[in-house]
Amino acid sequence: MNDFTYAYPTKIYFGKGAAAKHLPAELAKVGKKVMLAYGGGSIKSNGIYDEMMTILKDAGKTVIEFSGIMPNPTYAKVQEGAELARKENVDFILAVGGGSVSDCCKIVASQAVTEEDIWELEFTKHEFPTDAVKLGVVVTASGTGSEQNAGAVITNEDKKIKTGVFGAHADFAILDPQYTMSVPFKQVISGAFDTLSHAMETYFGKPQESFLSDEINEAVMRNTIANIRKLIENPDDLEARSELMWDSAMAENGILKIGKITDFQAHQIEHQLGAYTNCNHGRGLAVIHPVLYRHIYKEGLEKFKRFAVAVWNVSTAGKSDDEIALAGISALEDFIKEAGLPTRFRDMGITYEDVLKPVADSTNITAGCCKQLTREEIFEILQECF
Amino acid sequence: MNDFTYAYPTKIYFGKGAAAKHLPAELAKVGKKVMLAYGGGSIKSNGIYDEMMTILKDAGKTVIEFSGIMPNPTYAKVQEGAELARKENVDFILAVGGGSVSDCCKIVASQAVTEEDIWELEFTKHEFPTDAVKLGVVVTASGTGSEQNAGAVITNEDKKIKTGVFGAHADFAILDPQYTMSVPFKQVISGAFDTLSHAMETYFGKPQESFLSDEINEAVMRNTIANIRKLIENPDDLEARSELMWDSAMAENGILKIGKITDFQAHQIEHQLGAYTNCNHGRGLAVIHPVLYRHIYKEGLEKFKRFAVAVWNVSTAGKSDDEIALAGISALEDFIKEAGLPTRFRDMGITYEDVLKPVADSTNITAGCCKQLTREEIFEILQECF
Repeated sequence: MNDFTYAYPTKIYFGKGAAAKHLPAELAKVGKKVMLAYGGGSIKSNGIYDEMMTILKDAGKTVIEFSGIMPNPTYAKVQEGAELARKENVDFILAVGGGSVSDCCKIVASQAVTEEDIWELEFTKHEFPTDAVKLGVVVTASGTGSEQNAGAVITNEDKKIKTGVFGAHADFAILDPQYTMSVPFKQVISGAFDTLSHAMETYFGKPQESFLSDEINEAVMRNTIANIRKLIENPDDLEARSELMWDSAMAENGILKIGKITDFQAHQIEHQLGAYTNCNHGRGLAVIHPVLYRHIYKEGLEKFKRFAVAVWNVSTAGKSDDEIALAGISALEDFIKEAGLPTRFRDMGITYEDVLKPVADSTNITAGCCKQLTREEIFEILQECF
Repeated sequence: MNDFTYAYPTKIYFGKGAAAKHLPAELAKVGKKVMLAYGGGSIKSNGIYDEMMTILKDAGKTVIEFSGIMPNPTYAKVQEGAELARKENVDFILAVGGGSVSDCCKIVASQAVTEEDIWELEFTKHEFPTDAVKLGVVVTASGTGSEQNAGAVITNEDKKIKTGVFGAHADFAILDPQYTMSVPFKQVISGAFDTLSHAMETYFGKPQESFLSDEINEAVMRNTIANIRKLIENPDDLEARSELMWDSAMAENGILKIGKITDFQAHQIEHQLGAYTNCNHGRGLAVIHPVLYRHIYKEGLEKFKRFAVAVWNVSTAGKSDDEIALAGISALEDFIKEAGLPTRFRDMGITYEDVLKPVADSTNITAGCCKQLTREEIFEILQECF
């Protein structure tokens, strides 16, 4: 267990009708001009937009709309939002949507109050923003856990890079599992797989020796898997949706990362795949994880064995250590198929193999959860994923 | 899973040398006059007092000392601290100690800024304090998790009531597992049992149906038990002490309570036993838990069965539901003996049976984790504990 500093500055309101119950009191704390940020407009057809507008109007707010935030939010969109926030001098940003809307707004909130270009600040000067417009998030689609922290994944189209950027923490987040009922079911499952991916990328992080955070992580992984299965059985199961929404939060509120160095190598590969193909995040991860893990499991054998037994209930009887570890990875792959997620890029519509080399060449290589990859290995992994 | 609101306003600095690393920056945020609060003076013999004084002096602070906070802090002591804080107009309280010091200071911090008597405010007016002197906690003995929340257990000697009072959250807490090396080993174990008790009192709370919070709780309980065993094997095991320190935090930072109504009936009984006998908290709980659970398990059979299997690894083969549940409670009792903790009040020096009736008559009866007790049942439980 490594030393750590831990803070959780976002207040969570969870449950049916949480926006109506809690948003008015939160809005009373902030100024008059509120930027209402959302995505492609699905909140207009499912009634959430009207609900928010009523609450904002009842709170006496002037609403500035910032819409059209795309699934893989771009840096250009961040700049558009920041410019609007500055021009209108907004007091507060209310982000209503899934991880993309929340991610975009976390960076908009920071970019709006500084003259510096945040991309340059973080990636050239290696500094981080310290100030931001106040922000609240209403989660309509869970999985990313974006509302739980200050990190965001942003695609810089000019640079062909999709990567983590740091911005603002939300002051509060409203999680109403009912809102997820309006999300396409395929996206609910792919979001839930993102949760499982976050948990795995943390679980296999250093130190490899297991301790409390890993034991809690196993509970979160088992719960995520069990509730994806329940939801496949009955997509209307609101209890399962509640569990998955809180799994999503737990995987990213920092509790699982306590005393650990997380290692998001699968995410790094998927991010560059996304930068080149604009593919769905959770589906890309579903393809990458088992292939990546078969490449590295020997270097993290004890942890992969533990994963097999504790998460996938693999029987160890008559199996060698390698066989136990590989049975765990196979169980993960079987589950991916069971959940209707792809196991090869071609299954998700990526049919142009020539994209793999530039993805491999631009992927951020992490310290390695148990083994640091070479660029050649990343290319091999991508070819196997194809 | 019930709806919930969750906030975690305390920043945690965890690890070896955390005070030297992080206290200066935290002290820089507060005013000049700091009240250094501690207990019976053990921090003077183990060097922690000198370390704190050096850090405070280097930070240019004027130190007002508030010492002699007793193991079961009294309301009179709270008033003494509040009066001192007011008289000296302190800017900040630094509580250095275990749960008693932290508990006392959380209420001192609130009492110092109000004219109202906090006891009257909370128990007559049913209101809670909203303002407080800023507070930081340096944890030297873990188990209570007191540094994680705003609740405190205070003994009102005049009223013969030991009960939960609400005060201030610490802005930050420093948890250095090395500090626990100076605590008498018996107290380390009794503190760790308090952690297990917090987890159990939450686990058996409503709703009885298990979900993510319970699954995480099982991980915390298993980890607490395993690390108490490691520490008995080797009291110098700093890794085990680190785990227990974080178990203590996790049991009281609210994560296990998410979506649940906790039910601290064992604590309520122990509190009144403490009010009448000033007994050790963890040891009192060790006696009460198995006796209480044998009284109520039939009403929470599914959960007690789950507890037996998931926490104590009880084999279900050939056992009836009742036998599985009872085997779990027996495993808990065996563990209590293994940890050198008492299973009867007489083993902890409470030899005067006539105290049991007034304890039963004054115990706060909770809603019941699975069954609400009558006062007669509490008296029966206490007699069985004797």
